[in-house]
Amino acid sequence: MKNRVILFFLGFGLLLNAQRGKMPYQDANLSIEERINDLLPRMSLEEKVAQMRIFHANIGVESDEKGRLKLSDRVIEKLKLGIAGIKNPGEHISPAAAAKLNNELQQYIMKSNRWGIPALFVTESYNGVDAAGCTKFGRPINSAATFNPELVNRIWDVVGREARLRGMHMCHSPEADLVRDPRFGRMSEAFGEDTYLTTQMVLNAIKGVQGDYKGLGEGTHIGAVAKHFAGYGQVLGGRNFAAVEISPRTLIDEIYPPFEAAVKEARTLGIMASHGDINGVASHGNPELLTGVLRDQWGFDGYVVSDSNDIARLYYFMKVAESPEAAALMGLVAGIDIDLYAEDSYAYLPEMVKKDPSIEKMIDRSVRRVLRTKMRLGLFDNPLVDVKKAEKEVRSQTSLALAQEADLESIILLKNEANTLPLAKNKKKIALIGPLLNQETQEAFQAIAGEDITFVADKGFELTDGKKGVPNVLPTDEKALDRLTGLANDADVAILFLGGDEFTAKEAYFNNALGDRATIEPVGPQDELVRRVKALGKPVIIVLKHRRTLAINVMAKEADAILDGWDLSEMGDTALAKVIFGEVSPSGKLPVTVPRSIGQLPFHYSMKEINNKKGYLFLEDGPLYPFGYGLSYGNFTYDDIQLSGATMTPTSEITVSTKVTNTGSMAAKEVVQLYIKDEIGSVTRPDKELKGFEKILLNPGESKTVSFKITPKMLEFTGLSMKKVLEEGDYTVMVGTSSKEGVTARFRLEK
Amino acid sequence: MKNRVILFFLGFGLLLNAQRGKMPYQDANLSIEERINDLLPRMSLEEKVAQMRIFHANIGVESDEKGRLKLSDRVIEKLKLGIAGIKNPGEHISPAAAAKLNNELQQYIMKSNRWGIPALFVTESYNGVDAAGCTKFGRPINSAATFNPELVNRIWDVVGREARLRGMHMCHSPEADLVRDPRFGRMSEAFGEDTYLTTQMVLNAIKGVQGDYKGLGEGTHIGAVAKHFAGYGQVLGGRNFAAVEISPRTLIDEIYPPFEAAVKEARTLGIMASHGDINGVASHGNPELLTGVLRDQWGFDGYVVSDSNDIARLYYFMKVAESPEAAALMGLVAGIDIDLYAEDSYAYLPEMVKKDPSIEKMIDRSVRRVLRTKMRLGLFDNPLVDVKKAEKEVRSQTSLALAQEADLESIILLKNEANTLPLAKNKKKIALIGPLLNQETQEAFQAIAGEDITFVADKGFELTDGKKGVPNVLPTDEKALDRLTGLANDADVAILFLGGDEFTAKEAYFNNALGDRATIEPVGPQDELVRRVKALGKPVIIVLKHRRTLAINVMAKEADAILDGWDLSEMGDTALAKVIFGEVSPSGKLPVTVPRSIGQLPFHYSMKEINNKKGYLFLEDGPLYPFGYGLSYGNFTYDDIQLSGATMTPTSEITVSTKVTNTGSMAAKEVVQLYIKDEIGSVTRPDKELKGFEKILLNPGESKTVSFKITPKMLEFTGLSMKKVLEEGDYTVMVGTSSKEGVTARFRLEK
Repeated sequence: MKNRVILFFLGFGLLLNAQRGKMPYQDANLSIEERINDLLPRMSLEEKVAQMRIFHANIGVESDEKGRLKLSDRVIEKLKLGIAGIKNPGEHISPAAAAKLNNELQQYIMKSNRWGIPALFVTESYNGVDAAGCTKFGRPINSAATFNPELVNRIWDVVGREARLRGMHMCHSPEADLVRDPRFGRMSEAFGEDTYLTTQMVLNAIKGVQGDYKGLGEGTHIGAVAKHFAGYGQVLGGRNFAAVEISPRTLIDEIYPPFEAAVKEARTLGIMASHGDINGVASHGNPELLTGVLRDQWGFDGYVVSDSNDIARLYYFMKVAESPEAAALMGLVAGIDIDLYAEDSYAYLPEMVKKDPSIEKMIDRSVRRVLRTKMRLGLFDNPLVDVKKAEKEVRSQTSLALAQEADLESIILLKNEANTLPLAKNKKKIALIGPLLNQETQEAFQAIAGEDITFVADKGFELTDGKKGVPNVLPTDEKALDRLTGLANDADVAILFLGGDEFTAKEAYFNNALGDRATIEPVGPQDELVRRVKALGKPVIIVLKHRRTLAINVMAKEADAILDGWDLSEMGDTALAKVIFGEVSPSGKLPVTVPRSIGQLPFHYSMKEINNKKGYLFLEDGPLYPFGYGLSYGNFTYDDIQLSGATMTPTSEITVSTKVTNTGSMAAKEVVQLYIKDEIGSVTRPDKELKGFEKILLNPGESKTVSFKITPKMLEFTGLSMKKVLEEGDYTVMVGTSSKEGVTARFRLEK
Repeated sequence: MKNRVILFFLGFGLLLNAQRGKMPYQDANLSIEERINDLLPRMSLEEKVAQMRIFHANIGVESDEKGRLKLSDRVIEKLKLGIAGIKNPGEHISPAAAAKLNNELQQYIMKSNRWGIPALFVTESYNGVDAAGCTKFGRPINSAATFNPELVNRIWDVVGREARLRGMHMCHSPEADLVRDPRFGRMSEAFGEDTYLTTQMVLNAIKGVQGDYKGLGEGTHIGAVAKHFAGYGQVLGGRNFAAVEISPRTLIDEIYPPFEAAVKEARTLGIMASHGDINGVASHGNPELLTGVLRDQWGFDGYVVSDSNDIARLYYFMKVAESPEAAALMGLVAGIDIDLYAEDSYAYLPEMVKKDPSIEKMIDRSVRRVLRTKMRLGLFDNPLVDVKKAEKEVRSQTSLALAQEADLESIILLKNEANTLPLAKNKKKIALIGPLLNQETQEAFQAIAGEDITFVADKGFELTDGKKGVPNVLPTDEKALDRLTGLANDADVAILFLGGDEFTAKEAYFNNALGDRATIEPVGPQDELVRRVKALGKPVIIVLKHRRTLAINVMAKEADAILDGWDLSEMGDTALAKVIFGEVSPSGKLPVTVPRSIGQLPFHYSMKEINNKKGYLFLEDGPLYPFGYGLSYGNFTYDDIQLSGATMTPTSEITVSTKVTNTGSMAAKEVVQLYIKDEIGSVTRPDKELKGFEKILLNPGESKTVSFKITPKMLEFTGLSMKKVLEEGDYTVMVGTSSKEGVTARFRLEK
């Protein structure tokens, strides 16, 4: 990386080789397919293959001290033939600096390849654009907890705008995986355990980030890459890179729908394949999945990108290919259009074509998809962005307010004994203690609580030694425990910040990093701290921050109140303070089932009814907290269900409605949830399934009638023939406040 | 049950209605199919359906105080049309009394139905005939731990003889399920986690119990019913009655083989279906499974019996049938020939035929299979047994010696720090303590140890309150702990009897009983007892008795020696004493992987290699003890592997051999294990798979060369096309002492 060349560009302007004149593919008046039909035959084999590879900017895309583009020799070499895309250029610099850098980079790229083909600049963005200076939103698991798709849509609209403003074009987000195993280190990156909830969130995330698709061509938004297709969340034992053991019917009915919606409804530009396998077939080498299902069945015409190095890994990791070349061919045949990072996979394609010219057809197929994506994003015509706008609009006050709004809707009240919460803002002393306390928390709390309240704050101890790859749990720091207990004793109320941090749950990367866990109890002496503070006889309020579901049995028993914040935005502390001091009622609902024990897994609310017939010896039955659960400062009563009819036909619908009343004394939002249970099916059926929800605001004493349409489509599942069926029989509808509690009615479907 | 009729029979003799004369189906010189062809058309619909039902003797088959047959009205009513079979007649009385009862019962049955059709008397027999006075062998998990199929064959030969002697004809055993989840309460009833080991054990169990098939017609043995077809051991979360989530390839390659061998090689007379589902399809209603795979592919022509009430449960439990009648039809269509117990399932068939006469063809099909079985057992011709022989031969000294021989080969030495074991028989005091101590243990130990050794024995405490349906763990009995620690302190050596009992692991029956567990740590203060005794500085020897795999982390760390006895025979204490005092070296090997934590599940040694790539945060990698592991009083060294060739073809074989030497000072048996790993496959492949083993006895200094033939068949698996394939490429062979430790070599398969 030593020999770098500093490249100068003199502002904006037409950068395509002028001497070439305008060729048909450069004509924005032609259709995308016409333009590709013109361009593709012009390209050399090597140029085509270059359009099938993405490299990471960390191999040598930087700005020098004066903010000018600085490329390593390796990058310059790579760009000679063009490139599909570059991951994360300018990720560590400000939005405006990144915009400038990316403009220069794009100009360089378009100039350095014969046909002036622009590159895709790619980022990750599951909780905001993963780059310096962008708004940090709560994680997807928080978005799911809002049960507010419209809000999620607005978040991702901001994400799309902020990314495009800094010169990016695609994000390897959102995750459309179901996360049902809290051992898995990445569970907070997805939208929870439920197919329907995840589908709604993914749909709105993609529509948001793509600016309802229009934003792509208009240059205001970026393309989404829904991932990881398919079943990545189902890795055995929650171990990253492990195999997946799943039956075909579960795959179709539970795992596919968020992806299908991403393709058919949200029109995602990209799909990323999964590290894992399905029924022994590696997803990166699975034509039935990546071509049969994705393209032939669902009509996807964007590109499929590999996960990092995963095509090469078909050989050296999955061991389903006999050589790197065989791995490349396997990925190509399956339908992977872009090789992310690997130097030892699609790089071999030109040599392979010399031996077997028939391969080039598949290369053309993939390049077409990549070029199509670039044209959809308008990159041939408007490759550059407005640096000043990036400076002004990214991480605006409006965006930060939105982040906080989402936080407020995602915080879940798990317990509130004797209305411990909200706290009055009258004169008192509050101890803010525990390992999940932030440096900024006290200030944020003071700002909301006002001057009558005195805060003392002490984190006390860390959970782990903070080692990056393989951290260790620290031994109990008795002095710190004593100190924290002392602080609590001197205060009127103790607020304990507990849960898990970035070292106790994270992605277990390929090399030398762990992130999955075999236990889901809180790490370190957290339960002990709770017990000691509880013994003081003071109100104990727990604020949970965490990235995986935790079996908080002790906390659930001992605490007076528990607020579950998962992993909030950069505005999170203020949001927590607003909830604690009663400015806003919590309205989040659990997007996952909280088990009592790791030994209850697999354990999601929509499991087949037969899974619930036998509990375990020496363990209380059922979850610690059920899916969809969350308390409120309001008090909601549900009137009996009204059905528009007792029978339904394959061409009719039923409307179910119930009146919900806030009999409490505070305005609050409630997520009204619709569950349907198929009483008898030709195959074993779920205990119940979420099929709708609506978040409503009710003032004290106010009532609203919430209605849901039940359509035949909502009752379909994969029948004995492995085709979708709609079956005659009885269905139970539940409308309620969680998956466990609601009012029910029954109707019959007749054919 | 009040109105009973006492029935008198005047000794033996021809009981078929004499006035009818001999009909072709009564002619033993005709073939079975000829006889059925004659009988079946004679039978009324109601008589046929009676041949498709088994009831339990507990509804009213007893002997009165004078040993005469006593039948309830309900039974008499049921027997008027004949019956397929009766479960457990005479189970609580002595073998001779049972033989007498069963003779009388059979005579009554043959007389009370028009055609003189005898009934099948059915029992369970996984660890010996489940009836009073029969030899109690170790459980199947112990048999698996012997890694000695010939021994298992002899055990089941005794089981078959003892059952037939008391007048039984079929047993609902053995279990051909793989048990890979220690949460499952029934894991000790099967042969462990491995496909190959289970297959060998099932094969030998069935051949044994059926007297190599010949014993059926000769009247010396009984028919086997291999169960539970298929995937019953794979219930989610180890919860009985739960759904099964398994991919088609795993089902075929890992779950089917023991059943396929049971049918094709061992010629099992019966198969029992599984409570569960596969890919959403209830096994009791799965024609593809029960007819397609079992009969069309494997050629099975015996009968399929339901599990208890499971045809009716297709309606009220599995909820895949709209009514009891629909459930009956579903079971019939799928290929279930006998309805075990249900009054509300096949009982409806006669009425159903009136509405749809086409059903009768399927009834004929099933009745033919039942009659075929009865004829194979010679019941039409020799329905009675010799009462005197039953008295003499059941539970003979030879059988008890065999039980002990099996115990000796099934005890696994898990740890033996500084050769703590065997104990010398010199003057010392030994404390026998802990909740798994039997009343008879001290006596058995004294008999083996001789007079120089003084024993003190105290069980100390129970693990649970012993409640039958839903027991509770008892609070720690501090006094008992103190007492046991005191005993250990006064002794030279402490032997701790720990593990689990019949209340901490058992079948979770349908009604009101739990047996599965969410944790696999030892229950109660057992670890605490180990720590206290260890603190005394005396040698700590642990004898484990248990029915599920336990994560014995504390014991593994603290104990000087651990003997794992699982659930031994009625001779178990003597066997333990013989091992502890060095009369015999332990030679058992683990038939399951022992995890460090419930959170590591799923966790079996033959998982796909990709499952082992990521461990967990805060947990040591790998199992606590690997599959196939077990120490010895001998000391075995393995010379390097010799391969007969470096390449193999689809029509050739390779012989692998290695010299094993006992460099220790005591004669001992070793299980030499052969594992094969397919380095690259078209689908993701197991880390390694057991493909052979041989148990050898080596005197001190003795060497033996152990050879295994590797055949192309052993390398086959279900390929991408879902057909069996043999793939070119490299294979690694390991011959060793466990799944973790051995000598390796590599060969190549070329086509």
